[in-house]
Amino acid sequence: MAQESTHETELSGALLRVGAGFLLSEVDPDATPGVDGGKKDGQKQLADGESRFDELQERLYAQSRVDDDTPAVLLVLQAMDTAGKGGIVRHVIGATDPQGVRLKAFKAPTPEERAHDFLWRIEKELPPAGYIGVFDRSHYEDVLIGRVRELASPKEIERRYHAINAFEERVADSGTHIVKVMLHISADEQKARLTERLDRPDKHWKYHPGDVDERLLWPQYMDAYQTVFERTSTDLAPWHVVPANAKWYARLAVQTLLIEAFERIDPQWPAADFDVEAEKKRLAAS
Amino acid sequence: MAQESTHETELSGALLRVGAGFLLSEVDPDATPGVDGGKKDGQKQLADGESRFDELQERLYAQSRVDDDTPAVLLVLQAMDTAGKGGIVRHVIGATDPQGVRLKAFKAPTPEERAHDFLWRIEKELPPAGYIGVFDRSHYEDVLIGRVRELASPKEIERRYHAINAFEERVADSGTHIVKVMLHISADEQKARLTERLDRPDKHWKYHPGDVDERLLWPQYMDAYQTVFERTSTDLAPWHVVPANAKWYARLAVQTLLIEAFERIDPQWPAADFDVEAEKKRLAAS
Repeated sequence: MAQESTHETELSGALLRVGAGFLLSEVDPDATPGVDGGKKDGQKQLADGESRFDELQERLYAQSRVDDDTPAVLLVLQAMDTAGKGGIVRHVIGATDPQGVRLKAFKAPTPEERAHDFLWRIEKELPPAGYIGVFDRSHYEDVLIGRVRELASPKEIERRYHAINAFEERVADSGTHIVKVMLHISADEQKARLTERLDRPDKHWKYHPGDVDERLLWPQYMDAYQTVFERTSTDLAPWHVVPANAKWYARLAVQTLLIEAFERIDPQWPAADFDVEAEKKRLAAS
Repeated sequence: MAQESTHETELSGALLRVGAGFLLSEVDPDATPGVDGGKKDGQKQLADGESRFDELQERLYAQSRVDDDTPAVLLVLQAMDTAGKGGIVRHVIGATDPQGVRLKAFKAPTPEERAHDFLWRIEKELPPAGYIGVFDRSHYEDVLIGRVRELASPKEIERRYHAINAFEERVADSGTHIVKVMLHISADEQKARLTERLDRPDKHWKYHPGDVDERLLWPQYMDAYQTVFERTSTDLAPWHVVPANAKWYARLAVQTLLIEAFERIDPQWPAADFDVEAEKKRLAAS
């Protein structure tokens, strides 16, 4: 398991990484680790990061056009309802070319999906070389709601932690940089956000009575997340817990994590595989 | 076939629609029909339209969450290389929530795809209720490059026009609003854009020597487009030819076409299918 750094002052993945001894209950959802300046500063940093994020994504995509071994990036987003996964997709991922993104929102499994191992439908959605895959919920649902709602036996849940680690090890070894993020809001913040959905007729469609049913199991969900972190935060695919009561902070943090992943890959513009001068002449004559 | 309106002064789909007697050769790729103010004004209009576009898309998506019969919108983009399809995806489609968009770039067909009718792979990518589908190239390649490069017999090409019209009629009847767009650039503009790709090492990956091979067949492609317009611009699925030498104009025009499609659908926020007051109480107590 990765060691958590305690010496960072700037926002970085190391500040948010789940290491040995991590306790979710000690994370303040209102905190903004690594950012002192508040919302206005944070939003400016987010805007400043967009061009960097976008250029790195384009480089990665470009490299993959000539090199089948180009890595991919997979962002796994998990959170309680209303924590802001959709906002991440829009405001962080939305800053780059949709053509380089593979987005998948995992819902309750279909009968066909349930007839397979829980990782069957996940495998099919892994991003190809050069792409950013975004999982809005993921295989972790199978050890979160799966555990809280007892949708599987304890023995099966236990098997799944092992299966997830083996699966992610293979995915990482095959060239995909996995960025796992839990957006962490407080129960009070969730109540405020659900209340807003009930107060606004144009938000009613986003509200489901079942949201309150899940909310009533908040402590059980936090326990299930804690276990997920203990069992599946690995060196190859560490978890990051992002305080998310401040939406601007959560977005900036996820952008930072993705930029760091791209920088580890360090994608390069491909060299021309044709004679540039000859093509210039051919084009001029056309 | 739709009649082309000649009385419009504001930018609208009617100004760009392919009607009886349409001649591609008479469309000036530098023109900006319906927009007098030039680039700065056009960019402002585009920015102003983004929130309208975004709200309509969200309404449509919301409606589809409670109503399986909600329409979809399908944008079909065709063009010569460098005409700006990618820019449309980024700057027009990119203004709305990626979660409501299904984007598909059609490449040369795979062996599996070639073993089926040309519409087989198209069918699989049609947008579900409430989504915007975007086809970057489409089944029209099979009567464009298919015709110019003689990839199929004249009899088969002939069959395809009929097949496309029958297919699109069914798609439209099943509730999908089809918006077909050809981005029209001049051969000189293409030369300038390809030259820029050759001049910039970070753009080399976008250049393919085959682009010049296709370019040398420009008149044949324009003939093939003219025939496409004559044979497949129907009331249910009319073509629009968008002058595209000015990128800002092409983007504004496509945004306008999409907003018009949404307005024809007139999607509504769904009424709550739960007791709002009861839920407020339950939430407050949670």
